[in-house]
Amino acid sequence: MTIRYPNGKLYSPNPTVQKTAKKGKDKDYSFSNRGKTLEDEINEANDYYVKRRLAIIHKKPVPVQIVKVEYPSRSAAVIREAYFRTPSTTDYNGVWNGHYIDFDAKETASKSSFPLKNIHVHQMTHMQQVTEQNGVAFIIVRFSAFERYFIVPYDVLQKAWLAMENGERKSIPFSTIEKEAFEIPTSYYPRIDYLPIIQQLIEAKSHGSESEEIVE
Amino acid sequence: MTIRYPNGKLYSPNPTVQKTAKKGKDKDYSFSNRGKTLEDEINEANDYYVKRRLAIIHKKPVPVQIVKVEYPSRSAAVIREAYFRTPSTTDYNGVWNGHYIDFDAKETASKSSFPLKNIHVHQMTHMQQVTEQNGVAFIIVRFSAFERYFIVPYDVLQKAWLAMENGERKSIPFSTIEKEAFEIPTSYYPRIDYLPIIQQLIEAKSHGSESEEIVE
Repeated sequence: MTIRYPNGKLYSPNPTVQKTAKKGKDKDYSFSNRGKTLEDEINEANDYYVKRRLAIIHKKPVPVQIVKVEYPSRSAAVIREAYFRTPSTTDYNGVWNGHYIDFDAKETASKSSFPLKNIHVHQMTHMQQVTEQNGVAFIIVRFSAFERYFIVPYDVLQKAWLAMENGERKSIPFSTIEKEAFEIPTSYYPRIDYLPIIQQLIEAKSHGSESEEIVE
Repeated sequence: MTIRYPNGKLYSPNPTVQKTAKKGKDKDYSFSNRGKTLEDEINEANDYYVKRRLAIIHKKPVPVQIVKVEYPSRSAAVIREAYFRTPSTTDYNGVWNGHYIDFDAKETASKSSFPLKNIHVHQMTHMQQVTEQNGVAFIIVRFSAFERYFIVPYDVLQKAWLAMENGERKSIPFSTIEKEAFEIPTSYYPRIDYLPIIQQLIEAKSHGSESEEIVE
């Protein structure tokens, strides 16, 4: 069903648009980015991958605790009372070429570092567990000041997290990100084509473990 | 925080218990099963696996379209209007030993067959896509009349689905399930320890493809 305004424009009840508009107020998006959130950009890439059958990666729904539901006659059930719950995992997961892919998306306005307070303890635990099961765990970080995107592998996060727990700095310097993370170049569509970068990450990991074997 | 009743029993605010009690009314559960839903049983197994770091498999949250949220001062945000959305994937996914695991849980009261109307088209599409990416896709079916559980691999579902589309029967006979699916024996805890059965399924698949190669 489509609704048209008298001026011929389509009415779009898409909640993402509202969210973007709201976020756009306090952020200086470049025109090329058209005010998209990082979530929008990742969803765009995921849709692209699913349609072309390149990878099957989806965002998990927001977890809510439903308390009260009304069932009006002859219409859909309406949730009248519900609360947001803390997610116990990361937001995105799926499969690519036999690999289990698991990640979260984080954005920072900082120009000098990625603050670790952006990551929750339960997310670190989850990524640790995924890594133990030979899944591929990472975060996609957007440095909004530079419009640069990076895949930060779990082992890089873990190293910084342990250092923080030992009283060292509470963030990963941008220079470390540039050196140890994998940059996602931006393009027209999808804006962040992160799949080839995951492939790089997996190849780097398997080469890393091979050379370790040689050393032994 | 734990709350104890005067009789010493723990107060459990677990919403799953209510749900089970409601469902229990119209279902004849055996005592050993203690009125648990299939979802409860799978969650129990998943908790067991995560705690022992055997596999990381979670149920996805129920997707809801949030329309109205209130922010009362000094308390949590309350969702005041939301609607259930149709999930575009299956309910459970995760990783075990490098394998991407993806499934849905289905229950039937039928004693003779598993009706295919229990599966949605979008779930078949999703399982097809997962299979193409070398993920492991299946459904766990509970035949409540017998209290028997089976892992039905996607290829068995697909064959039956295609037959249905060609005008043949709209269900998988129980005899076919017994022959082509993998039964999950029940035990005390977790009641349905399905992980070793997934291992069987993966081994059967890899042997299957090996013998096909020999034929060629």
